[in-house]
Amino acid sequence: MSANNIPYKIYLNESELPKAWYNLRADMKNKPAPLLNPGTHAPMTAQELSGVFCEELVRQELDETTPYFPIPQEIQDFYKMYRPSPLVRAYCLEQKLQTPAKIYYKFEGNNTSGSHKLNSAIAQAYYAKQQGLKGVTTETGAGQWGTALSMACSYFDLDCKVYMVKVSYEQKPFRREVMRTYGASVTPSPSLETQVGRKILAEHPGTTGSLGCAISEAVEVATSTEGYRYVLGSVLNQVLLHQSIIGLETKAALDKYGIQPDMIIGCAGGGSNLGGLIAPFMGEKLRGEADYRIIAVEPASCPSFTRGKYAYDFCDTGMVCPLAKMYTLGSGFIPAPNHAGGLRYHGMSSTLSQLYADGLMEAVAVPQTEVFQAAETFARVEGILPAPESSHAIKVAIDEAIQCRETGEEKTIVFGLTGTGYFDLVAYEKFHNGEMSDYIPTDEDLQASFDKLPKF
Amino acid sequence: MSANNIPYKIYLNESELPKAWYNLRADMKNKPAPLLNPGTHAPMTAQELSGVFCEELVRQELDETTPYFPIPQEIQDFYKMYRPSPLVRAYCLEQKLQTPAKIYYKFEGNNTSGSHKLNSAIAQAYYAKQQGLKGVTTETGAGQWGTALSMACSYFDLDCKVYMVKVSYEQKPFRREVMRTYGASVTPSPSLETQVGRKILAEHPGTTGSLGCAISEAVEVATSTEGYRYVLGSVLNQVLLHQSIIGLETKAALDKYGIQPDMIIGCAGGGSNLGGLIAPFMGEKLRGEADYRIIAVEPASCPSFTRGKYAYDFCDTGMVCPLAKMYTLGSGFIPAPNHAGGLRYHGMSSTLSQLYADGLMEAVAVPQTEVFQAAETFARVEGILPAPESSHAIKVAIDEAIQCRETGEEKTIVFGLTGTGYFDLVAYEKFHNGEMSDYIPTDEDLQASFDKLPKF
Repeated sequence: MSANNIPYKIYLNESELPKAWYNLRADMKNKPAPLLNPGTHAPMTAQELSGVFCEELVRQELDETTPYFPIPQEIQDFYKMYRPSPLVRAYCLEQKLQTPAKIYYKFEGNNTSGSHKLNSAIAQAYYAKQQGLKGVTTETGAGQWGTALSMACSYFDLDCKVYMVKVSYEQKPFRREVMRTYGASVTPSPSLETQVGRKILAEHPGTTGSLGCAISEAVEVATSTEGYRYVLGSVLNQVLLHQSIIGLETKAALDKYGIQPDMIIGCAGGGSNLGGLIAPFMGEKLRGEADYRIIAVEPASCPSFTRGKYAYDFCDTGMVCPLAKMYTLGSGFIPAPNHAGGLRYHGMSSTLSQLYADGLMEAVAVPQTEVFQAAETFARVEGILPAPESSHAIKVAIDEAIQCRETGEEKTIVFGLTGTGYFDLVAYEKFHNGEMSDYIPTDEDLQASFDKLPKF
Repeated sequence: MSANNIPYKIYLNESELPKAWYNLRADMKNKPAPLLNPGTHAPMTAQELSGVFCEELVRQELDETTPYFPIPQEIQDFYKMYRPSPLVRAYCLEQKLQTPAKIYYKFEGNNTSGSHKLNSAIAQAYYAKQQGLKGVTTETGAGQWGTALSMACSYFDLDCKVYMVKVSYEQKPFRREVMRTYGASVTPSPSLETQVGRKILAEHPGTTGSLGCAISEAVEVATSTEGYRYVLGSVLNQVLLHQSIIGLETKAALDKYGIQPDMIIGCAGGGSNLGGLIAPFMGEKLRGEADYRIIAVEPASCPSFTRGKYAYDFCDTGMVCPLAKMYTLGSGFIPAPNHAGGLRYHGMSSTLSQLYADGLMEAVAVPQTEVFQAAETFARVEGILPAPESSHAIKVAIDEAIQCRETGEEKTIVFGLTGTGYFDLVAYEKFHNGEMSDYIPTDEDLQASFDKLPKF
């Protein structure tokens, strides 16, 4: 099959691994809008942010000009335990689709967190340890981020408190056990342990939770507990910086074999995977060195890019966090309970939002039953059971490859396969039993949510 | 950390992948004892076996002289989807243990079956397809083999009927969903669907099943259904042949960096992993070219090597299969229900049994709470959540490394990490909650089982 001498899987050597993260903002002419203090509406200062985040991470969060941040040796060593991740040529999928397109995917699922989330978790845990902290708090949705952070904290001997969106906590009982294996505590959110949790439960009894709620709880605990800070697995500039390792490795592997992609496709929730995957490609595009189609894929049930407003909004449901300018469905937006897996955040990374507003990338929303159909097709031919999140990118990659079959174009498609679906089998079971539904929010639903956006 | 220039993970290039399987029997002076017809006690003929197994697999099963079997191109292509598997230097584990030992593990878990089982599943499905069959039947214990076979059958568009040991079926509800994703049917065993299942249920109402029961059911269905054959994931010579890919890759990776191991450690249930992992090393030992300690690790709750009899016994509980000479606990032996995970077969590969009888390898039995302690230690430093089966090898590798710390010896330890524990979290939960117990069969239990061994 690999007649043109492209192997099924391209692994970089350890010596070829990136030694620095790439800060996409350095090449952006229109910088992402700054975080604002929710009281004064002035840009958040480093001092204000360092009550919530570690100091070095605040520096990374605010730095819009330094293009490369060296990766500390301890983090490089940890990366070597599960990186490089393979760039896989999807020969079997191409054959199944009878497409002239060449399909590649960067597979980030070969680690116990089951996803790319570990790339930033280990960095954030490292800086927390460097600062002499006792522990960190965080939220998790599908559980990938919480698992990743548990692993990272265990490695650096830090305490780890995870607030897990209640619907995921109930759908994924085994995720909790993995986090316990790594010594973390896991609390379903909203909980009665925090002021903000009690307030949300009083206002919305029986809510199944949202990432926005869980963030509020984790931030409250971090800011009210000595020696703790809050860490976040997506949305933030620092996270996109760490996740650039995905794109840098992808680019290095493509370059090694002289492969020029036509399009880069990634799923998008808060933007951690997409921002990391596209970073060096978008950098070339910003610098005018190359052109690529860059496609964000989001769930039709949580369509922040395709149906959200580009506006300042709270990052959390409890409205205790700074305001960020982003494509948002409103901080009170909670996806329908039949929405499976992650990609359930109400907003989108400010950096990606600015790039989308500037017309530098596309976005498409897909319904979840079609996503699971794509997942099953992929699993059967490529042998990997994909996470529902990742399957959004698979769906659009397949659509594009089928279009190539119609037109005869031999396009080169690269997509991010962020993780595995081993903890998503309740959702797969619903799909197999024909019990999965597609819920798309109505315009009225969204308008009611937009009406509550902060006004100033 | 990798000061001596051994990378964390050694990946062979595609061009370095083995092109032929190695048949260990060709180098054995004392060949393994033949399978016997349970009625006549004469060696099973190819014709007799081909009512149960595919023809090419029968040829492989009986061939004791051909050292190498070329791997068909289609199988090589499939292997490239998830192989080479990495040979990992466990720098972090070494540091944690403060040992001068050098520890390497061959990690077979980076595929959706979660284990090495896919190596033989794809071969057996390929030959079934070549023979024009409609489908295959099999048993599965922990579920790894059933998942692997489902994936392989889906790839070649074969029907797949899996009989799953009831206790695993109940402990691992999600395994069934993975197999369904690949289009297989899964029946808890013993079932009311077969004669032998009904008989076993009548004699042992409420039994939680065993591999031996499930084999009987799968064989009955295969031999009574047009266009079907039975396939088995362990024990058989053909399986060890296919699994030699593990050892051949391991050897190639070690040779590439000039590493000479002192000992090879593998977990052993029916022998599929152990037989594959040790094959080329044992070959060198048999040919007098090198010497290694070779250590089989089995559960104290199912100790066929360390406490079994070396005798002819039935391969299945229902006594419908041929007799094999092996270390056995008796075909009626069923591990205590608190035994977690796989490695629950009552016997052991005839090839490995002969090698053990000839003093060419060692065996040790370990209690399961210590196995889970080793698993947790490993997960926290190496980042991989291991399968309970694999953790038996981890336990002994850690013990050997600690002994090196005491003696100051810089031994090189290689062990097989057969798979991941993502579907074993019920067992991990019991371990975390202090609800896991160790059950070791009494001498009286075993004697009662030995009394039922066939006599002739």
